[in-house]
Amino acid sequence: MLTKEQLETLWAEADEIYLNNISIDCVVFGFHEGVMKVLMLKSNNEDAWLLPGGFVRKLEPIDVSANRILKERTGLDEIFLKQFHVFGDPDRTKLHNEMYRDMLPAKKNFFDRRFISIGYYALVDFVNANPTPDVFSEVCTWQDINDLPPFQLDHELIFKTALDTLRLQLNYQPIGYNLMPREFTMPELQKLYETILGKKLDRRNFQRRMLGFGILNKLEETRKGGAHKAPYLYEFNLEHYQAALDGGLSGGW
Amino acid sequence: MLTKEQLETLWAEADEIYLNNISIDCVVFGFHEGVMKVLMLKSNNEDAWLLPGGFVRKLEPIDVSANRILKERTGLDEIFLKQFHVFGDPDRTKLHNEMYRDMLPAKKNFFDRRFISIGYYALVDFVNANPTPDVFSEVCTWQDINDLPPFQLDHELIFKTALDTLRLQLNYQPIGYNLMPREFTMPELQKLYETILGKKLDRRNFQRRMLGFGILNKLEETRKGGAHKAPYLYEFNLEHYQAALDGGLSGGW
Repeated sequence: MLTKEQLETLWAEADEIYLNNISIDCVVFGFHEGVMKVLMLKSNNEDAWLLPGGFVRKLEPIDVSANRILKERTGLDEIFLKQFHVFGDPDRTKLHNEMYRDMLPAKKNFFDRRFISIGYYALVDFVNANPTPDVFSEVCTWQDINDLPPFQLDHELIFKTALDTLRLQLNYQPIGYNLMPREFTMPELQKLYETILGKKLDRRNFQRRMLGFGILNKLEETRKGGAHKAPYLYEFNLEHYQAALDGGLSGGW
Repeated sequence: MLTKEQLETLWAEADEIYLNNISIDCVVFGFHEGVMKVLMLKSNNEDAWLLPGGFVRKLEPIDVSANRILKERTGLDEIFLKQFHVFGDPDRTKLHNEMYRDMLPAKKNFFDRRFISIGYYALVDFVNANPTPDVFSEVCTWQDINDLPPFQLDHELIFKTALDTLRLQLNYQPIGYNLMPREFTMPELQKLYETILGKKLDRRNFQRRMLGFGILNKLEETRKGGAHKAPYLYEFNLEHYQAALDGGLSGGW
Protein backbone atom coordinates (compact mmCIF):
# COMPACT_ATOMS: atom_id res chain seq x y z
CA MET A 1 0.00 0.00 0.00
CA LEU A 2 1.18 3.51 -0.86
CA THR A 3 1.71 6.39 1.56
CA LYS A 4 -0.14 9.67 1.15
CA GLU A 5 3.10 11.24 -0.14
CA GLN A 6 3.54 8.55 -2.77
CA LEU A 7 -0.06 8.99 -3.89
CA GLU A 8 0.44 12.76 -4.21
CA THR A 9 3.50 12.26 -6.38
CA LEU A 10 1.68 9.77 -8.59
CA TRP A 11 -1.27 12.07 -9.08
CA ALA A 12 0.92 15.11 -9.77
CA GLU A 13 2.65 13.13 -12.52
CA ALA A 14 -0.65 11.96 -14.01
CA ASP A 15 -1.10 15.28 -15.81
CA GLU A 16 2.11 14.70 -17.76
CA ILE A 17 1.33 11.12 -18.65
CA TYR A 18 -2.41 10.85 -19.38
CA LEU A 19 -5.04 12.55 -21.51
CA ASN A 20 -7.40 14.76 -19.54
CA ASN A 21 -11.01 13.89 -18.93
CA ILE A 22 -10.92 10.34 -20.32
CA SER A 23 -10.86 7.05 -18.45
CA ILE A 24 -11.41 3.38 -19.28
CA ASP A 25 -13.25 0.81 -17.14
CA CYS A 26 -13.14 -2.93 -17.80
CA VAL A 27 -15.91 -5.45 -17.16
CA VAL A 28 -14.32 -8.89 -17.32
CA PHE A 29 -16.91 -11.65 -17.03
CA GLY A 30 -15.72 -15.09 -16.02
CA PHE A 31 -17.58 -18.32 -16.78
CA HIS A 32 -16.89 -21.87 -15.65
CA GLU A 33 -19.25 -24.84 -15.45
CA GLY A 34 -22.47 -22.92 -15.01
CA VAL A 35 -21.14 -20.16 -12.76
CA MET A 36 -20.68 -16.56 -13.89
CA LYS A 37 -18.49 -14.02 -12.14
CA VAL A 38 -17.10 -10.53 -12.69
CA LEU A 39 -13.62 -9.24 -11.88
CA MET A 40 -13.59 -6.55 -9.16
CA LEU A 41 -11.17 -4.60 -6.98
CA LYS A 42 -11.51 -3.31 -3.45
CA SER A 43 -9.49 -0.12 -3.07
CA ASN A 44 -7.43 0.61 0.00
CA ASN A 45 -9.44 2.66 2.52
CA GLU A 46 -12.74 2.25 0.72
CA ASP A 47 -15.67 -0.01 1.53
CA ALA A 48 -17.19 -0.30 -1.92
CA TRP A 49 -15.81 -2.22 -4.87
CA LEU A 50 -14.62 -1.07 -8.30
CA LEU A 51 -14.24 -2.41 -11.80
CA PRO A 52 -10.60 -2.26 -12.91
CA GLY A 53 -10.07 1.13 -14.54
CA GLY A 54 -7.48 3.72 -15.44
CA PHE A 55 -6.40 6.41 -17.88
CA VAL A 56 -5.23 6.75 -21.48
CA ARG A 57 -1.58 7.66 -22.12
CA LYS A 58 -1.11 10.69 -24.35
CA LEU A 59 -0.07 8.77 -27.48
CA GLU A 60 -1.65 5.39 -26.77
CA PRO A 61 -4.44 3.83 -28.93
CA ILE A 62 -7.44 3.22 -26.66
CA ASP A 63 -7.54 -0.56 -27.23
CA VAL A 64 -3.91 -0.71 -26.06
CA SER A 65 -4.83 1.40 -23.02
CA ALA A 66 -7.62 -0.99 -22.05
CA ASN A 67 -5.28 -4.00 -22.08
CA ARG A 68 -2.49 -2.15 -20.26
CA ILE A 69 -4.92 -0.92 -17.58
CA LEU A 70 -6.35 -4.39 -17.02
CA LYS A 71 -2.84 -5.84 -16.71
CA GLU A 72 -1.59 -3.09 -14.37
CA ARG A 73 -4.58 -3.34 -12.07
CA THR A 74 -5.32 -7.08 -12.04
CA GLY A 75 -2.30 -8.85 -13.54
CA LEU A 76 -4.51 -10.38 -16.27
CA ASP A 77 -3.02 -10.32 -19.74
CA GLU A 78 -3.96 -11.30 -23.28
CA ILE A 79 -7.68 -10.93 -22.73
CA PHE A 80 -9.78 -9.90 -25.73
CA LEU A 81 -11.40 -6.67 -24.54
CA LYS A 82 -13.99 -4.95 -26.69
CA GLN A 83 -15.43 -1.47 -26.18
CA PHE A 84 -19.20 -1.43 -25.59
CA HIS A 85 -20.38 1.97 -24.29
CA VAL A 86 -19.25 5.42 -23.18
CA PHE A 87 -20.38 6.73 -19.79
CA GLY A 88 -20.59 10.50 -20.09
CA ASP A 89 -22.68 11.81 -17.20
CA PRO A 90 -20.87 14.94 -15.92
CA ASP A 91 -21.55 13.91 -12.30
CA ARG A 92 -20.41 10.31 -12.61
CA THR A 93 -17.04 10.88 -10.86
CA LYS A 94 -18.25 13.51 -8.41
CA LEU A 95 -18.42 11.20 -5.41
CA HIS A 96 -14.95 9.89 -6.13
CA ASN A 97 -13.54 13.40 -6.52
CA GLU A 98 -14.97 14.43 -3.17
CA MET A 99 -13.49 11.41 -1.41
CA TYR A 100 -10.03 12.15 -2.73
CA ARG A 101 -10.28 15.90 -2.21
CA ASP A 102 -9.62 15.41 1.51
CA MET A 103 -6.49 13.42 0.81
CA LEU A 104 -4.99 15.88 -1.65
CA PRO A 105 -3.71 19.46 -1.73
CA ALA A 106 -6.55 21.95 -2.18
CA LYS A 107 -5.31 23.16 -5.56
CA LYS A 108 -6.65 21.59 -8.72
CA ASN A 109 -5.25 18.13 -9.42
CA PHE A 110 -5.64 15.52 -12.13
CA PHE A 111 -8.39 13.65 -10.29
CA ASP A 112 -10.42 16.75 -9.50
CA ARG A 113 -12.05 16.60 -12.90
CA ARG A 114 -14.82 15.15 -14.92
CA PHE A 115 -13.94 11.83 -16.56
CA ILE A 116 -15.80 10.39 -19.51
CA SER A 117 -15.26 6.64 -19.30
CA ILE A 118 -15.05 4.19 -22.17
CA GLY A 119 -16.36 0.77 -21.10
CA TYR A 120 -14.60 -2.39 -22.33
CA TYR A 121 -15.78 -5.95 -21.73
CA ALA A 122 -14.58 -9.52 -22.12
CA LEU A 123 -15.71 -13.07 -21.30
CA VAL A 124 -13.11 -15.60 -20.14
CA ASP A 125 -12.84 -18.87 -18.23
CA PHE A 126 -12.16 -17.71 -14.68
CA VAL A 127 -10.37 -20.94 -13.79
CA ASN A 128 -7.56 -19.89 -16.15
CA ALA A 129 -7.34 -16.31 -14.85
CA ASN A 130 -5.98 -15.64 -11.38
CA PRO A 131 -5.99 -11.92 -10.61
CA THR A 132 -3.64 -10.08 -8.23
CA PRO A 133 -4.33 -6.65 -6.70
CA ASP A 134 -2.22 -3.60 -7.59
CA VAL A 135 -0.79 -1.06 -5.09
CA PHE A 136 -4.08 0.85 -4.94
CA SER A 137 -6.12 -2.22 -3.96
CA GLU A 138 -6.49 -4.55 -1.02
CA VAL A 139 -8.28 -7.24 -2.97
CA CYS A 140 -8.72 -8.21 -6.62
CA THR A 141 -11.03 -11.15 -7.14
CA TRP A 142 -13.85 -12.78 -9.09
CA GLN A 143 -17.29 -12.00 -7.62
CA ASP A 144 -20.35 -14.15 -8.39
CA ILE A 145 -22.75 -11.98 -10.43
CA ASN A 146 -25.66 -13.23 -8.31
CA ASP A 147 -23.98 -12.10 -5.08
CA LEU A 148 -22.24 -8.79 -5.76
CA PRO A 149 -20.82 -6.35 -3.19
CA PRO A 150 -21.76 -2.62 -3.34
CA PHE A 151 -20.16 -0.75 -6.27
CA GLN A 152 -18.41 2.63 -6.23
CA LEU A 153 -19.36 5.54 -8.49
CA ASP A 154 -21.48 4.46 -11.49
CA HIS A 155 -19.76 1.08 -11.73
CA GLU A 156 -22.99 -0.83 -11.15
CA LEU A 157 -24.40 0.91 -14.25
CA ILE A 158 -21.26 0.02 -16.21
CA PHE A 159 -21.53 -3.62 -15.08
CA LYS A 160 -25.23 -3.87 -15.97
CA THR A 161 -24.73 -2.24 -19.37
CA ALA A 162 -21.94 -4.72 -20.13
CA LEU A 163 -24.17 -7.64 -19.13
CA ASP A 164 -26.98 -6.35 -21.38
CA THR A 165 -24.47 -6.03 -24.23
CA LEU A 166 -23.21 -9.58 -23.70
CA ARG A 167 -26.77 -10.93 -23.67
CA LEU A 168 -27.63 -9.05 -26.86
CA GLN A 169 -24.46 -10.36 -28.48
CA LEU A 170 -25.81 -13.93 -28.16
CA ASN A 171 -28.33 -13.02 -30.88
CA TYR A 172 -25.82 -12.18 -33.58
CA GLN A 173 -22.40 -13.64 -32.66
CA PRO A 174 -21.13 -17.11 -31.76
CA ILE A 175 -19.78 -17.48 -28.24
CA GLY A 176 -18.11 -20.16 -26.18
CA TYR A 177 -14.98 -21.21 -28.05
CA ASN A 178 -12.71 -20.15 -25.15
CA LEU A 179 -15.18 -21.38 -22.52
CA MET A 180 -16.14 -24.93 -23.49
CA PRO A 181 -13.96 -28.06 -23.51
CA ARG A 182 -12.95 -29.16 -27.02
CA GLU A 183 -15.81 -31.69 -27.11
CA PHE A 184 -19.08 -30.97 -25.37
CA THR A 185 -22.71 -32.03 -25.25
CA MET A 186 -25.64 -29.84 -26.28
CA PRO A 187 -26.85 -29.52 -22.65
CA GLU A 188 -23.37 -28.29 -21.64
CA LEU A 189 -23.48 -25.59 -24.33
CA GLN A 190 -27.05 -24.70 -23.37
CA LYS A 191 -25.85 -24.20 -19.77
CA LEU A 192 -23.43 -21.50 -20.99
CA TYR A 193 -26.27 -19.59 -22.67
CA GLU A 194 -28.58 -20.05 -19.69
CA THR A 195 -25.90 -18.79 -17.29
CA ILE A 196 -25.27 -15.65 -19.35
CA LEU A 197 -28.98 -14.98 -19.84
CA GLY A 198 -29.87 -15.83 -16.24
CA LYS A 199 -32.84 -17.96 -17.34
CA LYS A 200 -33.79 -21.46 -18.48
CA LEU A 201 -34.15 -22.16 -22.20
CA ASP A 202 -36.25 -24.74 -23.98
CA ARG A 203 -34.07 -27.75 -24.84
CA ARG A 204 -35.48 -28.46 -28.28
CA ASN A 205 -35.62 -24.83 -29.41
CA PHE A 206 -32.04 -24.35 -28.24
CA GLN A 207 -30.79 -27.36 -30.17
CA ARG A 208 -32.70 -26.45 -33.34
CA ARG A 209 -31.49 -22.85 -33.30
CA MET A 210 -27.89 -23.72 -32.42
CA LEU A 211 -27.66 -26.35 -35.17
CA GLY A 212 -29.20 -23.84 -37.57
CA PHE A 213 -26.21 -21.54 -37.12
CA GLY A 214 -23.97 -24.16 -38.72
CA ILE A 215 -21.07 -23.57 -36.34
CA LEU A 216 -21.03 -27.05 -34.74
CA ASN A 217 -19.68 -30.39 -35.93
CA LYS A 218 -21.54 -33.42 -34.60
CA LEU A 219 -19.01 -36.09 -33.64
CA GLU A 220 -19.22 -39.84 -34.14
CA GLU A 221 -18.69 -40.59 -30.45
CA THR A 222 -21.17 -40.12 -27.63
CA ARG A 223 -20.53 -39.22 -23.99
CA LYS A 224 -20.36 -42.58 -22.17
CA GLY A 225 -20.92 -43.33 -18.52
CA GLY A 226 -24.15 -41.59 -17.55
CA ALA A 227 -27.33 -43.25 -16.33
CA HIS A 228 -29.28 -42.12 -19.41
CA LYS A 229 -28.84 -42.61 -23.13
CA ALA A 230 -25.33 -41.39 -24.02
CA PRO A 231 -25.65 -37.82 -25.40
CA TYR A 232 -23.99 -36.80 -28.67
CA LEU A 233 -20.75 -34.86 -28.55
CA TYR A 234 -20.11 -31.70 -30.57
CA GLU A 235 -17.15 -29.49 -31.35
CA PHE A 236 -17.05 -26.00 -32.84
CA ASN A 237 -16.45 -25.85 -36.58
CA LEU A 238 -13.72 -23.23 -36.37
CA GLU A 239 -13.96 -22.12 -39.98
CA HIS A 240 -17.70 -21.46 -39.72
CA TYR A 241 -17.30 -20.04 -36.20
CA GLN A 242 -14.78 -17.48 -37.46
CA ALA A 243 -16.97 -16.63 -40.46
CA ALA A 244 -19.90 -16.03 -38.08
CA LEU A 245 -17.71 -13.81 -35.87
CA ASP A 246 -16.83 -11.72 -38.91
CA GLY A 247 -20.15 -11.69 -40.74
CA GLY A 248 -22.77 -12.41 -38.10
CA LEU A 249 -24.65 -15.63 -37.41
CA SER A 250 -26.75 -17.08 -40.19
CA GLY A 251 -30.34 -16.37 -39.44
CA GLY A 252 -29.39 -12.72 -39.96
CA TRP A 253 -30.81 -10.90 -42.99
CA MET B 1 -17.72 32.70 -43.57
CA LEU B 2 -15.46 33.74 -40.71
CA THR B 3 -12.26 35.75 -41.01
CA LYS B 4 -8.96 34.36 -39.78
CA GLU B 5 -9.19 36.70 -36.76
CA GLN B 6 -12.66 35.47 -35.84
CA LEU B 7 -11.49 31.87 -36.11
CA GLU B 8 -8.52 32.61 -33.84
CA THR B 9 -10.80 34.12 -31.20
CA LEU B 10 -13.18 31.15 -31.37
CA TRP B 11 -10.37 28.66 -30.98
CA ALA B 12 -8.76 30.59 -28.12
CA GLU B 13 -12.09 30.47 -26.28
CA ALA B 14 -12.54 26.75 -26.93
CA ASP B 15 -10.19 25.90 -24.05
CA GLU B 16 -12.52 27.61 -21.60
CA ILE B 17 -15.68 26.05 -22.95
CA TYR B 18 -14.92 22.46 -23.93
CA LEU B 19 -13.38 19.33 -22.42
CA ASN B 20 -9.93 18.55 -23.77
CA ASN B 21 -9.20 15.62 -26.05
CA ILE B 22 -12.82 14.58 -26.66
CA SER B 23 -14.97 15.14 -29.73
CA ILE B 24 -18.24 13.80 -31.10
CA ASP B 25 -19.02 12.95 -34.73
CA CYS B 26 -22.53 12.27 -36.03
CA VAL B 27 -23.49 9.88 -38.82
CA VAL B 28 -27.07 10.75 -39.79
CA PHE B 29 -28.46 8.33 -42.36
CA GLY B 30 -31.44 9.42 -44.42
CA PHE B 31 -33.86 7.05 -46.12
CA HIS B 32 -36.73 7.76 -48.49
CA GLU B 33 -38.41 5.45 -51.01
CA GLY B 34 -35.51 3.13 -51.63
CA VAL B 35 -32.72 5.74 -51.51
CA MET B 36 -30.21 6.02 -48.69
CA LYS B 37 -28.11 9.09 -47.96
CA VAL B 38 -25.78 10.45 -45.28
CA LEU B 39 -25.56 14.01 -43.96
CA MET B 40 -22.23 15.71 -44.76
CA LEU B 41 -20.55 19.11 -44.58
CA LYS B 42 -17.98 20.72 -46.84
CA SER B 43 -15.79 23.05 -44.79
CA ASN B 44 -14.71 26.43 -46.06
CA ASN B 45 -11.31 26.20 -47.79
CA GLU B 46 -11.20 22.41 -47.84
CA ASP B 47 -11.84 20.00 -50.68
CA ALA B 48 -12.88 16.96 -48.70
CA TRP B 49 -16.13 16.44 -46.81
CA LEU B 50 -16.83 15.92 -43.12
CA LEU B 51 -19.43 14.35 -40.89
CA PRO B 52 -20.96 16.96 -38.56
CA GLY B 53 -18.84 17.02 -35.42
CA GLY B 54 -17.82 19.14 -32.45
CA PHE B 55 -16.80 19.19 -28.80
CA VAL B 56 -18.27 18.46 -25.37
CA ARG B 57 -18.98 21.40 -23.03
CA LYS B 58 -17.37 21.08 -19.61
CA LEU B 59 -20.56 20.19 -17.73
CA GLU B 60 -22.67 18.75 -20.55
CA PRO B 61 -23.89 15.11 -20.67
CA ILE B 62 -22.53 13.57 -23.88
CA ASP B 63 -25.97 12.72 -25.35
CA VAL B 64 -26.89 16.40 -24.97
CA SER B 65 -23.60 17.37 -26.65
CA ALA B 66 -24.36 15.17 -29.65
CA ASN B 67 -27.75 16.78 -30.22
CA ARG B 68 -26.41 20.32 -29.69
CA ILE B 69 -23.51 19.71 -32.08
CA LEU B 70 -25.81 18.33 -34.79
CA LYS B 71 -28.13 21.31 -34.43
CA GLU B 72 -25.31 23.89 -34.42
CA ARG B 73 -23.62 22.42 -37.47
CA THR B 74 -26.58 21.35 -39.63
CA GLY B 75 -29.71 22.98 -38.20
CA LEU B 76 -31.30 19.55 -37.64
CA ASP B 77 -33.08 19.13 -34.33
CA GLU B 78 -34.93 16.43 -32.39
CA ILE B 79 -33.13 13.55 -34.04
CA PHE B 80 -32.66 10.39 -31.98
CA LEU B 81 -28.88 9.99 -31.93
CA LYS B 82 -27.33 6.90 -30.37
CA GLN B 83 -23.65 6.33 -29.61
CA PHE B 84 -22.12 3.40 -31.48
CA HIS B 85 -18.29 3.43 -31.26
CA VAL B 86 -15.28 5.39 -30.00
CA PHE B 87 -12.50 6.25 -32.43
CA GLY B 88 -9.30 6.40 -30.42
CA ASP B 89 -6.37 6.16 -32.83
CA PRO B 90 -3.82 8.75 -31.60
CA ASP B 91 -3.10 9.84 -35.19
CA ARG B 92 -6.71 10.22 -36.30
CA THR B 93 -6.69 14.04 -36.14
CA LYS B 94 -3.09 14.54 -37.20
CA LEU B 95 -3.88 15.58 -40.76
CA HIS B 96 -6.44 18.04 -39.55
CA ASN B 97 -4.07 19.51 -36.99
CA GLU B 98 -1.43 20.04 -39.64
CA MET B 99 -3.86 21.81 -41.97
CA TYR B 100 -4.91 24.23 -39.26
CA ARG B 101 -1.39 24.76 -37.92
CA ASP B 102 -0.64 27.08 -40.84
CA MET B 103 -3.70 29.19 -40.10
CA LEU B 104 -3.03 29.58 -36.40
CA PRO B 105 -0.43 31.09 -34.07
CA ALA B 106 2.53 28.77 -33.58
CA LYS B 107 1.89 28.24 -29.88
CA LYS B 108 -0.23 25.35 -28.69
CA ASN B 109 -3.93 25.81 -29.28
CA PHE B 110 -7.07 23.81 -28.59
CA PHE B 111 -7.05 22.11 -31.99
CA ASP B 112 -3.40 21.13 -31.85
CA ARG B 113 -4.26 18.06 -29.85
CA ARG B 114 -5.32 14.49 -30.00
CA PHE B 115 -9.09 14.02 -30.02
CA ILE B 116 -10.81 10.78 -29.11
CA SER B 117 -14.13 10.88 -30.93
CA ILE B 118 -17.41 9.34 -29.81
CA GLY B 119 -19.49 8.32 -32.83
CA TYR B 120 -23.27 8.84 -32.77
CA TYR B 121 -25.71 7.69 -35.44
CA ALA B 122 -29.35 8.07 -36.44
CA LEU B 123 -31.69 7.09 -39.26
CA VAL B 124 -34.33 9.58 -40.45
CA ASP B 125 -36.51 10.35 -43.46
CA PHE B 126 -34.40 12.84 -45.41
CA VAL B 127 -37.46 14.43 -47.03
CA ASN B 128 -38.41 15.82 -43.60
CA ALA B 129 -34.91 17.06 -42.76
CA ASN B 130 -33.48 20.05 -44.63
CA PRO B 131 -29.98 20.87 -43.40
CA THR B 132 -28.32 24.29 -43.45
CA PRO B 133 -24.54 24.87 -43.22
CA ASP B 134 -22.98 26.64 -40.22
CA VAL B 135 -20.35 29.41 -40.39
CA PHE B 136 -17.51 26.90 -40.80
CA SER B 137 -19.08 25.24 -43.85
CA GLU B 138 -19.86 26.09 -47.45
CA VAL B 139 -22.29 23.24 -47.93
CA CYS B 140 -24.35 20.95 -45.72
CA THR B 141 -26.29 18.34 -47.63
CA TRP B 142 -27.48 14.72 -48.00
CA GLN B 143 -25.07 12.59 -50.05
CA ASP B 144 -26.17 9.33 -51.67
CA ILE B 145 -24.26 6.52 -49.90
CA ASN B 146 -23.55 4.90 -53.28
CA ASP B 147 -21.91 8.08 -54.61
CA LEU B 148 -19.92 9.65 -51.79
CA PRO B 149 -17.32 12.45 -52.06
CA PRO B 150 -13.86 12.02 -50.45
CA PHE B 151 -13.92 12.19 -46.64
CA GLN B 152 -11.58 14.14 -44.35
CA LEU B 153 -9.60 12.57 -41.49
CA ASP B 154 -10.95 9.14 -40.49
CA HIS B 155 -14.53 10.07 -41.29
CA GLU B 156 -14.85 7.34 -43.92
CA LEU B 157 -14.05 4.79 -41.17
CA ILE B 158 -16.62 6.43 -38.88
CA PHE B 159 -19.24 6.31 -41.66
CA LYS B 160 -18.52 2.65 -42.49
CA THR B 161 -18.57 1.61 -38.84
CA ALA B 162 -21.95 3.32 -38.40
CA LEU B 163 -23.33 1.54 -41.47
CA ASP B 164 -22.11 -1.84 -40.15
CA THR B 165 -23.76 -1.05 -36.80
CA LEU B 166 -27.05 -0.14 -38.49
CA ARG B 167 -26.99 -3.37 -40.54
CA LEU B 168 -26.29 -5.45 -37.43
CA GLN B 169 -29.11 -3.66 -35.62
CA LEU B 170 -31.60 -5.09 -38.13
CA ASN B 171 -30.98 -8.49 -36.49
CA TYR B 172 -32.13 -7.55 -33.02
CA GLN B 173 -34.21 -4.35 -33.17
CA PRO B 174 -37.28 -3.23 -35.10
CA ILE B 175 -36.73 -0.38 -37.53
CA GLY B 176 -38.84 1.75 -39.83
CA TYR B 177 -41.50 3.39 -37.71
CA ASN B 178 -40.29 6.89 -38.58
CA LEU B 179 -39.48 5.92 -42.20
CA MET B 180 -42.57 4.17 -43.56
CA PRO B 181 -46.00 5.65 -44.27
CA ARG B 182 -48.64 4.67 -41.69
CA GLU B 183 -49.87 1.85 -43.93
CA PHE B 184 -47.49 -0.02 -46.16
CA THR B 185 -47.11 -3.22 -48.15
CA MET B 186 -44.63 -5.99 -47.36
CA PRO B 187 -42.55 -5.20 -50.52
CA GLU B 188 -42.31 -1.56 -49.38
CA LEU B 189 -40.97 -2.64 -45.99
CA GLN B 190 -38.62 -5.13 -47.66
CA LYS B 191 -37.25 -2.26 -49.78
CA LEU B 192 -36.20 -0.45 -46.58
CA TYR B 193 -34.23 -3.50 -45.39
CA GLU B 194 -32.71 -4.06 -48.83
CA THR B 195 -31.63 -0.43 -49.06
CA ILE B 196 -29.92 -0.51 -45.68
CA LEU B 197 -28.27 -3.86 -46.36
CA GLY B 198 -27.34 -2.96 -49.93
CA LYS B 199 -28.56 -6.33 -51.23
CA LYS B 200 -31.69 -8.14 -52.43
CA LEU B 201 -33.59 -10.36 -50.00
CA ASP B 202 -35.77 -13.38 -50.69
CA ARG B 203 -39.42 -12.27 -50.69
CA ARG B 204 -40.86 -15.27 -48.86
CA ASN B 205 -38.12 -15.50 -46.23
CA PHE B 206 -38.46 -11.78 -45.56
CA GLN B 207 -42.21 -12.02 -45.06
CA ARG B 208 -41.98 -15.12 -42.84
CA ARG B 209 -39.27 -13.62 -40.63
CA MET B 210 -40.92 -10.20 -40.39
CA LEU B 211 -44.30 -11.67 -39.45
CA GLY B 212 -42.54 -13.89 -36.91
CA PHE B 213 -41.39 -10.80 -35.01
CA GLY B 214 -45.02 -9.98 -34.20
CA ILE B 215 -44.58 -6.23 -34.67
CA LEU B 216 -46.98 -5.83 -37.63
CA ASN B 217 -50.78 -5.67 -37.83
CA LYS B 218 -52.26 -6.97 -41.07
CA LEU B 219 -55.07 -4.66 -42.18
CA GLU B 220 -58.42 -5.56 -43.75
CA GLU B 221 -57.83 -3.36 -46.79
CA THR B 222 -55.51 -4.06 -49.69
CA ARG B 223 -53.56 -1.60 -51.85
CA LYS B 224 -55.84 -1.00 -54.87
CA GLY B 225 -54.97 0.25 -58.32
CA GLY B 226 -51.97 -1.83 -59.43
CA ALA B 227 -51.83 -4.16 -62.40
CA HIS B 228 -51.35 -7.22 -60.16
CA LYS B 229 -53.33 -8.76 -57.34
CA ALA B 230 -53.82 -6.04 -54.74
CA PRO B 231 -51.16 -6.52 -52.00
CA TYR B 232 -52.08 -6.59 -48.31
CA LEU B 233 -51.48 -3.50 -46.22
CA TYR B 234 -49.73 -3.56 -42.83
CA GLU B 235 -49.12 -1.13 -40.02
CA PHE B 236 -46.72 -1.33 -37.09
CA ASN B 237 -48.21 -2.65 -33.84
CA LEU B 238 -46.79 0.13 -31.70
CA GLU B 239 -47.12 -1.72 -28.41
CA HIS B 240 -45.19 -4.73 -29.71
CA TYR B 241 -42.77 -2.48 -31.61
CA GLN B 242 -41.90 -0.62 -28.41
CA ALA B 243 -41.54 -3.87 -26.47
CA ALA B 244 -39.14 -5.15 -29.15
CA LEU B 245 -37.14 -1.90 -28.97
CA ASP B 246 -36.78 -2.39 -25.22
CA GLY B 247 -36.32 -6.15 -25.02
CA GLY B 248 -35.06 -7.21 -28.44
CA LEU B 249 -36.94 -8.87 -31.29
CA SER B 250 -38.52 -12.22 -30.59
CA GLY B 251 -36.40 -14.87 -32.21
CA GLY B 252 -33.78 -13.89 -29.64
CA TRP B 253 -32.91 -16.40 -26.91
